[in-house]
Amino acid sequence: MAVSKEESLEYHRKIRPGKIEVNATKSLSTSYDLSMAYTPGVAYPCLEIEENPQLAYEYTAKGNLVAVITDGTAVLGLGNIGALAGKPVMEGKGVLFKKLADIDVFDLELNTQTPDQFIQAVKAMEPTFGGINLEDISAPDCFYIEEELKKHLKIPVFHDDQHGTAIITTAALMNAVEVTGKKIDEIRVVYNGAGAAGIACCKLHFLIGVKKENVILCDSKGVIYKGRTEGMNPYKEELAADTPCRTLEEALVGADVFVGISVKDALKPEMLLKMADKPVIFALANPDPEIDYDHAKKSGPDAIIATGRSDFPNQVNNVLGFPFIFRGALDCQATEINDAMKLAAAYALAGLAKQDVPDLVLNAYGLKSLQFGPDYIIPKPFDPRAIFWVTPAIVEAAMSTGVARKPIIDMDGYRNKLKRLMTI
Amino acid sequence: MAVSKEESLEYHRKIRPGKIEVNATKSLSTSYDLSMAYTPGVAYPCLEIEENPQLAYEYTAKGNLVAVITDGTAVLGLGNIGALAGKPVMEGKGVLFKKLADIDVFDLELNTQTPDQFIQAVKAMEPTFGGINLEDISAPDCFYIEEELKKHLKIPVFHDDQHGTAIITTAALMNAVEVTGKKIDEIRVVYNGAGAAGIACCKLHFLIGVKKENVILCDSKGVIYKGRTEGMNPYKEELAADTPCRTLEEALVGADVFVGISVKDALKPEMLLKMADKPVIFALANPDPEIDYDHAKKSGPDAIIATGRSDFPNQVNNVLGFPFIFRGALDCQATEINDAMKLAAAYALAGLAKQDVPDLVLNAYGLKSLQFGPDYIIPKPFDPRAIFWVTPAIVEAAMSTGVARKPIIDMDGYRNKLKRLMTI
Repeated sequence: MAVSKEESLEYHRKIRPGKIEVNATKSLSTSYDLSMAYTPGVAYPCLEIEENPQLAYEYTAKGNLVAVITDGTAVLGLGNIGALAGKPVMEGKGVLFKKLADIDVFDLELNTQTPDQFIQAVKAMEPTFGGINLEDISAPDCFYIEEELKKHLKIPVFHDDQHGTAIITTAALMNAVEVTGKKIDEIRVVYNGAGAAGIACCKLHFLIGVKKENVILCDSKGVIYKGRTEGMNPYKEELAADTPCRTLEEALVGADVFVGISVKDALKPEMLLKMADKPVIFALANPDPEIDYDHAKKSGPDAIIATGRSDFPNQVNNVLGFPFIFRGALDCQATEINDAMKLAAAYALAGLAKQDVPDLVLNAYGLKSLQFGPDYIIPKPFDPRAIFWVTPAIVEAAMSTGVARKPIIDMDGYRNKLKRLMTI
Repeated sequence: MAVSKEESLEYHRKIRPGKIEVNATKSLSTSYDLSMAYTPGVAYPCLEIEENPQLAYEYTAKGNLVAVITDGTAVLGLGNIGALAGKPVMEGKGVLFKKLADIDVFDLELNTQTPDQFIQAVKAMEPTFGGINLEDISAPDCFYIEEELKKHLKIPVFHDDQHGTAIITTAALMNAVEVTGKKIDEIRVVYNGAGAAGIACCKLHFLIGVKKENVILCDSKGVIYKGRTEGMNPYKEELAADTPCRTLEEALVGADVFVGISVKDALKPEMLLKMADKPVIFALANPDPEIDYDHAKKSGPDAIIATGRSDFPNQVNNVLGFPFIFRGALDCQATEINDAMKLAAAYALAGLAKQDVPDLVLNAYGLKSLQFGPDYIIPKPFDPRAIFWVTPAIVEAAMSTGVARKPIIDMDGYRNKLKRLMTI
C-alpha cells in the first residue's frame, strides 16, 4: 500500500514520538502497592528467583518479553543504514508482535563494530528476555551470530530475516507444488540471492524434500558453483552446485521454481519463458519484485506467482510467522526454535491456506472469494486464524523434540486461550 | 511499610507475570496504519534519521526511553544475587519512572562477568536510549563502569545508587545544617560505608562546602586513613583522611554529622553521645538503620535524624530524584547529568522542604502538619510537587553548563507542561 512520506513521518512524530511505551501492569495507586512493586516488598520475588531461577517466569515479565535486536547492517531493503536509523523498523516489529500475539518487545539497536561484539552484548542480555528475535543483520555475519548465540543461550534465538522468510516460502512452496501436480523431490529450484533469506530458504526447503542436486543458488556474480572462488563464504560453499551453469539465465532453463530474494527486475521475462511448465515464481524483492507481476503473468500464464507486495495475490509476509512462532515458543518455554518447529509452522500455514476463508478476511482485503489454488497458496498476512494454526503446532513440535521446558498438557484449553488473541 | 511475602509474590504473579508491558502508542487498526508502522512506510523515518541522527528524537521513542541496567552484583541490600534475580527490582524501578515522570523504561539485567564486558554491552546500546540509569552494581566496579560509559556515550549515564542517594542527602544535609545553625564549611562529617553511595555522598557534599579536612570515611575495617593498605581501592584512597583516628567511634568524637550507608546497628548510642551538640544522623541502612530511630532520639534528643524508612520522619528515598532528574535531562536532550545538575536537584529539593505542605501530601502520609525543622528536612518521597521543583532546575543547570542539546526557551510553558505530570 502506497504511503506518503509526509503521512508516515507525521504518524511517527505525532503526540508522542515513536510507536511504543512501557506501562505498568500492576496497580501503583497506593503506597502499599508501591512497597510491593519496589522496596521493601520486591525483595521477596528476588530471593525466590535467586533460589529457583525458573521462578523468573512467574514473578517478572521475562516469559513474555522478546528482544528485537539489530545492528542496523541490513535494514529492510535500505542496506547498512546503521543501528539508530533502523529504530523505526524495530519499534514497528515490536508493535506487530504485540498486536498479533500479545508479546512484549524491547527493541534494541546496537552500535557494534564486529559480529563478536554483537554476540557478547546479546549474550549478556539472556536473563532479561524470554526470547531473542534478531533482525536486519547482514549476511554472512548473521549466520555466525545466530549460530554462536544459539550455542550459548538457553532461550530461543531466531533471525527472522532468515527463518521467517524460509518458513513462509516453505508453506508456499509445498502448496505451489501441490497445485502444479509436481513432486517435491523432483522439482528443480533456482535461488537468486544468497543472503540471509536465500540461504535459509534453501536449507528449509531441503527439509520438505527438495533435493540438493536439484538446486542452484545464484548471487550477483551468477551461479554459485563448486570451485567458484570469487565472492564466496562458507555458507555459500556448503550449497555450491555441481553444475556447468554459470548464469542465472542458464540455471533457469527447465527449472520449476524461481526463488528470488534479490533485486528488482533480476528475472527477465525471457528467462521465465525458458522455465518448465507451470513455473513457480517467488519474486520477493521489496518493494519492487524480481519481475513485475503483470509481466510475469503475461510471460507465464500458467505460472504461480508470489511476491512481497500486498497488492497482488500470494503475498509472502513474515508477519504470518514470527508473532505466532514466538507465542508458542514462549508459552512452552522452549529453549530454542528448532527445525521441527519451523517445519511445523510451515505445515500449519500451508494447511490454513486450504481452509475456507471467512468473510472477515475477505472483507479486510476487499475480496469476493479466495480459494486454494494458483492465486491463493498462502494465507493472507493478517488472517486472524494464523495464531490458532501456527502457535499450537509450534508448541507440539517443541514438546515432541524435547525442547519445551514447560510442556502444555491441556492443548484444548491452550487453544481456547489462543482464540482470545485472534482479535485483529 | 511491612509487606507480607505472600502478598508480594501474588502481586508479582497475578494475571500477567511481572509488572510491565510494552504497548503501541499509535493506531494499528487498519492495514494503512500497519503500512506506516512497518513496511513500506517505515522506510521514510529510517532514511530521515540516517541523514540526520538527531531526528531519532522525533520519529522514535528514544527520547523518552531510559535503560535501567544492572549486573545484579549489589541488589538492594541483598548483595550479589545475580542479574536474573534482580529483575523484579529493575522492573519496579521502571514503573516508578513511568508513574512519577512518564518515562519509558527498558529494564535490562546483564549476565556479565567483568566490568569491561558490562561496559561493552551498555556502550553498544547507545542508539536505543535517551539515557542510562545504572542500578545495583557493586563498588568499586560501579565507579569504573560509570566513568568509562560517561566518557564514551553522548547520552546521560547515571548510577542512581551513587548519585541519587548523594543528591537526596545533599538536600537533607543543607537543610539540617541550616536547622542546627551550624556552618557547612565548619561541620565535621563522618561517613560510615565507602561503597557506591558513601563515596558519592561525600563527593557531592564537598560541592556544597563541606571541607575535605573535616571529613572522615569509615568502612567495615574502620577509618580510611592515609597510609592504610588493607581493603583499599583508588576511590577510597582519594578520600583517605589525614587523621590519627582508627575506629568509627574515635572518628565520631565531636563530629557534627554521621552519614551511614552501611549496616544495621553500626552506630551505637554511646557513639552518638560523643558527637557534637545537635548531631545530624543519616542512618540509611535498609531495612534496619545504623541506629534504631527511637534509640537515637533517646540518646540525642536534639539530634536531627533521617533514615531510609517510611515509618519515621525524614525518609531519604531516591524516588525524589531519579524520575525528575531524568525527566529534565531527556527533555533538554542533555548529553550528561553533571555535577551542576546534581546540585541543582539537591537545592530544589532543599527548597521544596521549606514550602507549606499541601493537604494532599499530609493526607497521603496521615499527618496533621509538616513544617520545615528537625523532623522535616526533606520532602516526602511521593510529594507530587517534586517534579515541578526538580525538573526545571535540572533543565536550567543543563542549559547553563552547555550540555543541553535542545535548550528549552519557554521555561514557563515547560513548567505548565510538567504540572500535567503531577498526578500521583
